[in-house]
Parts: sequence; C-alpha cells; structure tokens
Amino acid sequence: MLIVQKYGGTSVGDLDRIAHVARKVAKTKEAGNDVVVVVSAMSGETNKLIEWAKHFSKTPSKRDMDLLLSSGERVTSALLSIALNEMGYPTVAMTGRQAGIVTDSSHTTARIEKIDPAPMRRALDEGKIVVVAGFQGITADGEVTTLGRGGSDLTAVAIAGALGADKCEIYSDVDGVYTTDPRIEPKAKKLEKISYDEMLELASLGAKVLQNRSVELAKKLGVVIEAKSTFKDVPGTIITKEEEIMEKPLVSGIALDRNQARVSLRGVKDRPGIAAEIFKALAQENINVDMIVQTIGQDGKTNLDFTVPENELELVRQVMDRFKEEYESIDYDPHVAKVSIVGVGMKSHSGVASKAFETMAQENINIEMISTSEIKISMVIDEKYSELAVRALHSAYELDR
Amino acid sequence: MLIVQKYGGTSVGDLDRIAHVARKVAKTKEAGNDVVVVVSAMSGETNKLIEWAKHFSKTPSKRDMDLLLSSGERVTSALLSIALNEMGYPTVAMTGRQAGIVTDSSHTTARIEKIDPAPMRRALDEGKIVVVAGFQGITADGEVTTLGRGGSDLTAVAIAGALGADKCEIYSDVDGVYTTDPRIEPKAKKLEKISYDEMLELASLGAKVLQNRSVELAKKLGVVIEAKSTFKDVPGTIITKEEEIMEKPLVSGIALDRNQARVSLRGVKDRPGIAAEIFKALAQENINVDMIVQTIGQDGKTNLDFTVPENELELVRQVMDRFKEEYESIDYDPHVAKVSIVGVGMKSHSGVASKAFETMAQENINIEMISTSEIKISMVIDEKYSELAVRALHSAYELDR
Repeated sequence: MLIVQKYGGTSVGDLDRIAHVARKVAKTKEAGNDVVVVVSAMSGETNKLIEWAKHFSKTPSKRDMDLLLSSGERVTSALLSIALNEMGYPTVAMTGRQAGIVTDSSHTTARIEKIDPAPMRRALDEGKIVVVAGFQGITADGEVTTLGRGGSDLTAVAIAGALGADKCEIYSDVDGVYTTDPRIEPKAKKLEKISYDEMLELASLGAKVLQNRSVELAKKLGVVIEAKSTFKDVPGTIITKEEEIMEKPLVSGIALDRNQARVSLRGVKDRPGIAAEIFKALAQENINVDMIVQTIGQDGKTNLDFTVPENELELVRQVMDRFKEEYESIDYDPHVAKVSIVGVGMKSHSGVASKAFETMAQENINIEMISTSEIKISMVIDEKYSELAVRALHSAYELDR
Repeated sequence: MLIVQKYGGTSVGDLDRIAHVARKVAKTKEAGNDVVVVVSAMSGETNKLIEWAKHFSKTPSKRDMDLLLSSGERVTSALLSIALNEMGYPTVAMTGRQAGIVTDSSHTTARIEKIDPAPMRRALDEGKIVVVAGFQGITADGEVTTLGRGGSDLTAVAIAGALGADKCEIYSDVDGVYTTDPRIEPKAKKLEKISYDEMLELASLGAKVLQNRSVELAKKLGVVIEAKSTFKDVPGTIITKEEEIMEKPLVSGIALDRNQARVSLRGVKDRPGIAAEIFKALAQENINVDMIVQTIGQDGKTNLDFTVPENELELVRQVMDRFKEEYESIDYDPHVAKVSIVGVGMKSHSGVASKAFETMAQENINIEMISTSEIKISMVIDEKYSELAVRALHSAYELDR
C-alpha cells in the first residue's frame, strides 16, 4: 500500500515526540508500505514566530509572514528525516516546493493549484521514505506561500490525491471522530467510518479533528482519510465515500456549537431586498451568518432571526445600527447554543426530526430556531441546556448502542 | 550609491537588535542609497538546530542539515522586512533561491556558481529595500544548500559583485581591523584601509573580522568591503585593491596564532618522495600543515620541522606513527605560537625582516622557525613569549604611531 501520514504540531512537539513519530513511520514502512510523511511545525514554534512578527508590526505583510512561518515545517521535516536515517531508513526530505506543490498567490491562505508528483514518485520508487514540510507551497512565480489553518492536513490530502495513495492517515492527539463530545457524554462512541458529508457537518459544528477544507478536498479527490491518535495505537475513524459505508446509521453524531448568538429583528419593513442588504453588509465585515429564520409578523411586517458567532457580536451591533430605520426593535442573545443531529441515513428515513423535537419536549427545552438539510437537523436552544440536550439526543438515537 | 550591508548573528541576536538594524538600514536608505541587506540567523538559533540534529544522529546527512539550517536566515529576513515595512520602507524579503543564488551541490559547504541579479535589480528599481536570507542558495536542480562558515559574508560579497554595488558593508561586533589584537596591545590602532592580500594574511592568522573565502571572493570580483561595528557608529576598515591605497605602510599589522604545534623529525632517511608521502597522508586526514622547514642533518639524513593546528595533534601522532621506520626520532611541541608581520609595503622595502629578528633578539626570544612571503614574515616562537613578541614588534614598526 501507499500511505500518506500527517503528524500535527502536538505530535512533533519536542524531540522525544519526533523520535516517537519516526518509530511509527518506520513501523508502517516495515509492514511493506510505501510511505510519505507530512509534518507540521513543532507546537509552539509557529506561535513564537507570530509573536516575534507582532513585536514589529500589528499588520505584517502576508508575504513576509509566509516566508517566516514556512520555516517551522522545514525544521521538523529535516529532523524527522535525520531520525529515520539514523534508524536505517533512507529518506528524502522535501520542502513544499520540492514536493511539487504549486499554489495560487493568496499569501497566508493559498490554495493548492496542482502537485507535480514526479519527485516524490521517484523517491518512493527508490524505496525511500518521503518527508514533506506541510502547510506550504510556492506560486508559479516562485513566491513562498502557506495554506492557512489546517494547512498541513491539506498538504497531506492533496499529496495522497496526486499520488493515488491508498490511505491518508491524519494523526493528532484525538483518536478519531466520536458520536458526540465525550467530555459532555462519557458514553460517546468512536465512529468506525463516516462519510465526507457527515464529517463536514460535524466539523463545522465543533469537532476539532479535521478542518473542513481538508475534508472537502478529500471528497473531491476521493482520498480515504483515517483520523488517528499519535499516542494511542488503536484504529481511528475512516472518512470516506458514502457508498463505502455498508451499514448507514440513521444518525452518526450529535454536535454542539456554543459559540452562537441570536439576533432577532422585530417589525422589519416589508421592503424588497432589505434582508439581502443586511446580510450583504454582514458579509462585507466577514461575519459568518449561520441560521436564518424569517416569519410573517403583524401589519405586513416580518420578523427576522439569525445566528452569528458569539465573539463577533460587537461588530454585528455596529452593522445593525446602520439599518435601524428598517426595523422596530432588535434583540441580541449571546446565551444560545446550536445542537445538531447529523447522519446520512436520515436522507431515506422519515421520523428523524420528529424524534428530535419530542426529545426536546420531554426535557422541557424550548427550541428557538430550527434548520434542516438532507443530512442534518440543527436546533438553537438556551445555552444552559446544551449538555442536557446533547445527552438526551445521544440516548434517543441510541448512539451509545 | 548602491550599498550591500550584511549583519551577522550577534547583530540580529534578539528582537531589539533587529529593530536597531532596521534603523541603521533605514538611515542608509534615507541618505539616498539603494540598499540590499543580507542577514544571518539570530545568534544561538543555528547552534540550537545543530544540537537538535545531533540529538538524533552524530552524522546527520548534509542534505538534511542544509534544509534544517537554512531556516534560520529565512526567519531573520522576514522579521527585518516586517520591521522596515512598519517604519514606512517598502521591502522585498528574499530567500537565497529568490535572490537568484545558484550553488554547486556540495551540501553544507556549497560554492556560489552564479547569481541572477534580475529579481533584486527589479526590486531596487522600484525603490524597495531588498532583504536577503544569507548563507544559502539552491543548486540548478533545486536542492537547498548552505555555504558553510562565514556563508552570509559570502552571500553579501557575491551579491555586491553581481549588482556592481559601490560598497559591501560587513557589520559585526568588531569595529574594524586592528594593527594587532587590542587585548594583547592596548595601543593597537584601527586600520583605515587594508589590501585584500594583507587581510587574507591577517585573517588566516587569527583576526576574526572576515572569513578568508569572502575576502578572496571580494578580491576576485573587485568588491570594496567595509568591516564595521553594528553597535558603534564609527567608520570601520576598508578592504580594497592595493592600488586604491595611496599611502602604503611598510607593515600593516602583527598577527598571532596560538593554535600551533610543532612537529620535529630528526634523522629522516634521504629517500626521494618521503616528505611528499608524509604530507599527503596528513592532507588525507584534513590536517592543515602550515610552516615547513627542512634542514640537512648528519650522515646525509635530513631534519624536517612543520607546524600543525594544536587541536589536531593527536590525529597527527597517529599519522606519524605509520612512518616511524622513516625517521630516527620525533618530537611534538604544543607550546609554540606563530607571530606574523604583514604589510604590502615590504614588497618594495628591504630591512623589514632584519628588524623583526633584531627585535626578537633584543627581547631574548628564540626564533624556532621562519617563513616569509612577499607580504608576510612569520616566526614560530615559544608560546609563553607570544604577547611580549607582539608588543615588541608593534612598537618596533611604529604601529602605535
């Protein structure tokens, strides 16, 4: 098999951990696999470099930041390569450029445009382990770029796609994707397999295993991901095509997002395009509006409710003040949370939503907003009932089996 | 004027010092100059990375070491660029690759093969300050290389040559080249100007301002160097062509090298090629033999004396043991030092050497070995007379004026 492994900052956080990673890579190689390893910067290094940059400027140029931050992964890849050599495994350490990773020119948030797999392929054909500095690439003009948050995951997935790898293993300090946050519901179970779409819904709702960009790229390239623990030698969670999952559970998991605030406009003038104007203004400030509910009020006026990230509420207030001629009253509630039920099985089954509403009713939890998609039901509730709601739903859908 | 400035590890040793360097660069720019700045890694960083590598292997691959060590200069160049931007100066930070520096493939000791000055020229034409990560380049195949000790000086000199710069300023914690080590002779004077050849003789004899490779390259490219202090705002020492120095002093400086040991062979068989064999064997062990004196002894046998670096004496013993059939006796003396008198003026003046010998005689110092070149007279003496010899010669040639 050809396996791409990615080890994050915590996994390579100090020299002992790099040695541990080297042993894991060697074991994979010894099992008869070809191996490409993608590494992040040692944890703390990137933050140190950012702090240094901030010492000089609150707004350092993105081009300079890319030059600065790309150095961390180079260090880790060289050290891991040295460690593997010492254990008797021939390696080729590669920067993003040397691994053929070409990006667009959006410094600090670059997108991978293409990968020339020839240099990696050549090294693998020679029996070598390829060690790639994650998170970075170069533009067609030779400018150094970085890929933004979760960039090393993206590097790994993109390489797995370009090489047609059998699997892309993403190692972190979390050992997989759970039916819900085990800190809230100790009965949470680790999922054996999950579809890309379910993972996307779970990730955006708070599960911290994988960035959505990586899951989206994996879906597009058909890369099978396994999210695993660096420190526990147990199977992780496979993220793959829906068709690969034989037994499709009705519900795969319950996600919770506490970083939500509700904005409620009452008596909005029924002028065409007013909602569009408001959401455009919020988008221009890069405020991510999540759920939106519009209801008919009195006198032909409408009520508009939507949720925004709680930590952007102050900015939202400033934007909404510009529209104060357009509504009668406004209310901000930072004390809400969003609970979501995710599962590909609900596409073909009815009754999933009604069970959620019944469960909330049994627990006397008021549902303030509802939104549904093909594979997800989200409810906004009072934040203080968050844990109760998660545990009740987890049990109602028999996720504790 | 177009000025290339190079700041070493101590000069950029922490964030405050980088800010100080930014102010110096800005001042040069404000004076109406075009400026290219070459920076080293922050002092301590390179050693830290080497230690990390040694944690994994006593013999890390040179290719991996280059990937590892080249990261330090990238960090400094990005930080300096950020600092200059914040002060209002547009910059372009460049890696060795981006600055067009192409080297051969001798990892960790690469030689610069060529520089494509076009990217730097373009940035300068746009009024920008160019900030280059020193010490590094890439091969024609895109492999990352580093230039070895004094590599950032080499980068600066090579860039100055490629751009036809008016001056290459090398900043360090030393403010210039002195007539002798001021710690030995407090009356030592800073030289205003010195020729490349004199500098080469002084550097190899212990002055730590500039690596010989850089001086040789500057001589070849006709680059005028000024060795200056980062911390004191005073003129440094200009290193230039002999023809540029109007008033050629008889003697420019007195150098001392304590890291010398003398090997004395007595009764060497007069077999053709024996000396060649011995020196070839030493060269194969990378032992740098300095002075060699051969004298006729008794019975047609010869005596052979030579000096080697004191810290390689043990290795020398091992090599010499292989030849023990070839000589009657051998003696090792680690307690010797080499005192040298350097000056282009001695080419056209007689009596320089005899003054040296007279001075030694007056001080009752026995001269054990002598070697002379066009611009240098070296004497090996008992190490305990080192300081006395330096001070006496410094005074005899009126270097304290």
